[in-house]
Amino acid sequence: MIVELEQAIEIINKNIKIKDETEIIDIDEIENRILAKDIYAKINQPPFNRSPLDGYAVNSSDIQTASKNTPVKLKVIGSIYAGDDNNIIGEIATAVRIMTGGSIPSGYDCIIRQEDTDYGDKEVQIYVKHTSYQNYCFKGEDIKEGELLLKKGTLLNFVHVGILASQGISKINVKSKTNILFLTTGDELINIGDKLTSGKIYNTNLYTLKSRLKCLGVNVVAKTFKDDEIELAKYIKENHKFYDAIITTGGVSVGAKDIIHDTQKELFITPIFNKVNLKPGTPAMFWKYSETPILSLSGNPFAAVVTFELMARAMISLIGENVSIMPIWINGTMADKFEKASNKRRFIRAFYHNGIVNIKVNNHSSGAFTDTAYCNCLIDIEAGNKGLNKGDKVKLILF
Amino acid sequence: MIVELEQAIEIINKNIKIKDETEIIDIDEIENRILAKDIYAKINQPPFNRSPLDGYAVNSSDIQTASKNTPVKLKVIGSIYAGDDNNIIGEIATAVRIMTGGSIPSGYDCIIRQEDTDYGDKEVQIYVKHTSYQNYCFKGEDIKEGELLLKKGTLLNFVHVGILASQGISKINVKSKTNILFLTTGDELINIGDKLTSGKIYNTNLYTLKSRLKCLGVNVVAKTFKDDEIELAKYIKENHKFYDAIITTGGVSVGAKDIIHDTQKELFITPIFNKVNLKPGTPAMFWKYSETPILSLSGNPFAAVVTFELMARAMISLIGENVSIMPIWINGTMADKFEKASNKRRFIRAFYHNGIVNIKVNNHSSGAFTDTAYCNCLIDIEAGNKGLNKGDKVKLILF
Repeated sequence: MIVELEQAIEIINKNIKIKDETEIIDIDEIENRILAKDIYAKINQPPFNRSPLDGYAVNSSDIQTASKNTPVKLKVIGSIYAGDDNNIIGEIATAVRIMTGGSIPSGYDCIIRQEDTDYGDKEVQIYVKHTSYQNYCFKGEDIKEGELLLKKGTLLNFVHVGILASQGISKINVKSKTNILFLTTGDELINIGDKLTSGKIYNTNLYTLKSRLKCLGVNVVAKTFKDDEIELAKYIKENHKFYDAIITTGGVSVGAKDIIHDTQKELFITPIFNKVNLKPGTPAMFWKYSETPILSLSGNPFAAVVTFELMARAMISLIGENVSIMPIWINGTMADKFEKASNKRRFIRAFYHNGIVNIKVNNHSSGAFTDTAYCNCLIDIEAGNKGLNKGDKVKLILF
Repeated sequence: MIVELEQAIEIINKNIKIKDETEIIDIDEIENRILAKDIYAKINQPPFNRSPLDGYAVNSSDIQTASKNTPVKLKVIGSIYAGDDNNIIGEIATAVRIMTGGSIPSGYDCIIRQEDTDYGDKEVQIYVKHTSYQNYCFKGEDIKEGELLLKKGTLLNFVHVGILASQGISKINVKSKTNILFLTTGDELINIGDKLTSGKIYNTNLYTLKSRLKCLGVNVVAKTFKDDEIELAKYIKENHKFYDAIITTGGVSVGAKDIIHDTQKELFITPIFNKVNLKPGTPAMFWKYSETPILSLSGNPFAAVVTFELMARAMISLIGENVSIMPIWINGTMADKFEKASNKRRFIRAFYHNGIVNIKVNNHSSGAFTDTAYCNCLIDIEAGNKGLNKGDKVKLILF
């Protein structure tokens, strides 16, 4: 069955299982993870009534007549710096020297900033009047003990690390990382480090997509297979259960050694879709062994990248419920022409910056990969397009 | 000296030293690093003349009369699959069965796709004529041995990993990671895991900015100091030379224990700027000890984040010549009001999605940090703004 891209993603969505395992990890390691449980505040934040500035804690009723010309003089009975234990009780007609972050003693209800005083040590002259609770940060003003601190499902970043730290929380429950088995196939593939012999090529896909998977925050196990459907079928049979999904490259076309078809026969499996109506990477397939979804992509390095970005990212995002992995579609305006007509829906590589799209590549053939070095997006060209002109609006995804 | 944000960044730019150390690392680890030297192609890509499809290698002069009705019959003298050693020499009136990725034997100048033949084994009927070099990928068509493969200064990602792998290159020279010393200061700070005693708070900044620095790809050493300028000055004196820059939080204001001022006196240093004309985080300072730039930020967690995003990211980006670390300014349209007037230029947190900006936060005081959990951007509000209305265009940076 040949499907449109949007159908392909819908089919993938229906056939994956959302990962429900969770694990407890240190807040040092939570970046880009998904919070698995609601977290409630353990303490009030701030933990005490706190001075927001450097000055004097006073009682507003003592300074109602204060002005520059008629200062009110108060006895300074102590000082509180940030971090000081607060063992002072405020009395009528007294003040306490207090610094930003200091705990406001009970008996005082406002803070006079030091610029509105004579900076007195034993006695202080206050030059302004204040209302009750002026310049006064209440205990629990940011968040109160027991309130919802972070919602289940939150995509965590450095801000959340800080919020958890402010609560003294050092470990939290997050969704376990998605486990991906990544298999490259092909008799022609040579590992880097090995000598390139006649007819062979280095295994580009292995390195490209292993790196991509790593950067998307999943656990990857990568292996390379010869064009041997018996071996590949055996490996999938024995190992599928350890993974949330399998991605393969190579062997999806119609040649004599396109072994994914034969591997499916070995396993008595029919693909759910076996072609996607787009270029490059049309022969991409989606199938399942037992409960494990398998996305099989073209072995052509550029086609593999395009279909990985369009479909594998969606699959991984859906399994891990992590929206940050889903490709983002944006709009851009062409700065160049792309003169070729497209019968099929086609994705071409380009460079997007500040709304503008530059075609940086001379050779758009999917066999050419090197020019992708200076591209950062894929332009979505609809079927039947006669060519893009300067100024045309296009839809694209960033990679 | 109080400076505008743009001046501050200019001053930082003039006072940092671009990191010129490089190191050789595995291509498995190059993501987000900066290529230190031009890299030239070691081999032709593809390494041989390659078939782009499944079919038959033939000589175009043999099939000039071929059509569905007048097929040309050729003897099949062998077969070449992807990965096969190519030891066949093409002869007149012969063909070779060839699969996608197979090495085209000399003597043949085009590939007929199998759908345009009778799929013959010993003899094949060809139904179409082709021009010379039709369906023929030339050796070195993507890149030729000796050509520039990747430019010095390239920000590396998974695509570059693949391009290097396709050349069999396993190690490359990249700029060394920037080394940042991150110091939080304050008598009030308690480590998470320790008991929160009266007047103390957990050290939010330590965790927030350590996480942020880690995600920006720098090496971080983090330490916490009491409000003791002698100790802090001593530590900076002895350790500054091991770092490309130092970032501190806390102690920049005008209170009795705002120790960064006293630390500078201890070291006989005058700050290059000691205030930035924006809110929150105005008292941020920039100074140098010997050649090491030091950015000292407010201890208030939200102010620290704002000034980190605006200035520390710029500093780190400039030192490592890594543009991906520089904050990106984008435009958005307000979906909500923000009713407060701003005397000073002010940055408030919000949530940006698809061009639309939502104010998610009730308490915009810089003392409130928890609500930042659901924000992803900082709106830049100019001095004198009377408040933002729904539909207003705003400038913002994403964090």
